[in-house]
Amino acid sequence: MAGIEEQGNGRKAVVLLSGGLDSMVTAALAREAGYSLNALTIDYNQRHRRELDSAHEIARLLDAARHVVLPLDLRQFGGSALTDDIEVPKTGLGNSIPVTYVPARNLVFLSLTLAWAEAIGAQDIFIGVNALDYSGYPDCRPEFISAFEHVAELATKSGVEGDRFRIHAPLQHLSKREIAMEAWRLGLPTEMSWSCYDPDPSGLACGRCDSCRLRKAGFADAGLVDKTLYVAS
Amino acid sequence: MAGIEEQGNGRKAVVLLSGGLDSMVTAALAREAGYSLNALTIDYNQRHRRELDSAHEIARLLDAARHVVLPLDLRQFGGSALTDDIEVPKTGLGNSIPVTYVPARNLVFLSLTLAWAEAIGAQDIFIGVNALDYSGYPDCRPEFISAFEHVAELATKSGVEGDRFRIHAPLQHLSKREIAMEAWRLGLPTEMSWSCYDPDPSGLACGRCDSCRLRKAGFADAGLVDKTLYVAS
Repeated sequence: MAGIEEQGNGRKAVVLLSGGLDSMVTAALAREAGYSLNALTIDYNQRHRRELDSAHEIARLLDAARHVVLPLDLRQFGGSALTDDIEVPKTGLGNSIPVTYVPARNLVFLSLTLAWAEAIGAQDIFIGVNALDYSGYPDCRPEFISAFEHVAELATKSGVEGDRFRIHAPLQHLSKREIAMEAWRLGLPTEMSWSCYDPDPSGLACGRCDSCRLRKAGFADAGLVDKTLYVAS
Repeated sequence: MAGIEEQGNGRKAVVLLSGGLDSMVTAALAREAGYSLNALTIDYNQRHRRELDSAHEIARLLDAARHVVLPLDLRQFGGSALTDDIEVPKTGLGNSIPVTYVPARNLVFLSLTLAWAEAIGAQDIFIGVNALDYSGYPDCRPEFISAFEHVAELATKSGVEGDRFRIHAPLQHLSKREIAMEAWRLGLPTEMSWSCYDPDPSGLACGRCDSCRLRKAGFADAGLVDKTLYVAS
């Protein structure tokens, strides 16, 4: 797993852009480091489809060379509160992996990101995973990212021919407070990003799902204003 | 990587079913071993869409408990003769990875198979890769399958909780001749499977792409009749 110490110098990067705060900050960091952004958003028929609009706006804001929104209907598999008729928990983070976990999601998404990267000759991949203030998803941990880097080398023509894909996870060791501060430092209009798993029919964030809780706490701890409109505070 | 030494005893398995000869034999072997089949076919907007019909027929023939055909438009990425405006080579197999290689395809497909397996509580995954009489694709080699098994453990809730996913690649070390003989032993109507990358507008197999050449040679070496209708012989 690489940090973002290297400069892009105009090289192509593929950035996984969900439309959430973390992927927004990750994309902005890649751009700041001088990469040419190719943003990939997966429309996996998620409950919180509102994040797709955010991804669209963020890709435009950050001058992505290209933004692909790829439909992939994970509802056909189900097995998660985000892709099935399972209620999104609202009582706060527990100690186990929550039902909002989507089976193998980051592995599927990184694999697709790698496929696009290889097709366009990019070797740098950015993902906004974070294993500090997170929901306990296994596919956000550094050991997963390292294992993916290894499998990427064996799975691809470029890898076999000696090119190395670098998976950058610049938020990996940041707290949500630090991520909010990075957003502020970068001058990002964070209200453009979307975190809530279970928006209200009127379009407001629920304020009580794990993702809302983490976001709110991050801004609060950083002493910054979160302009998200929440149903509950 | 596991062989197929273990008996399924009615346990659920997810089988990646392209509709080709290898995936047909793989699915039949899984069934013979007593697994309950859940077949996954990826409609990746491939040039040889004819194989999707074959997948459908094979899933029915083998009494799959469920058959999911998942649309995933890899043409949005391109970079392969199977998903882009690049001509399919017809002059015979060379020494390098051919242009029919689809970037990271097996990694993407196995990740999706894993996602479905985890969602339905299956721990056995079957894939018909073969690294003997093959086109030189990197993602058919045993080292790739092993690395995938490792990343699967780190990427999933089940893996973290101690369940182990087994990736079965029962054809891994078989020649195409041996695969054709397995099909014969299993009594499979092999004409139901589809191998050609570049079918004729009338629906005949081209007979000259790498996939047709491998198939024809396999049947010929086994002394078996290949009932596929070819444009050229």
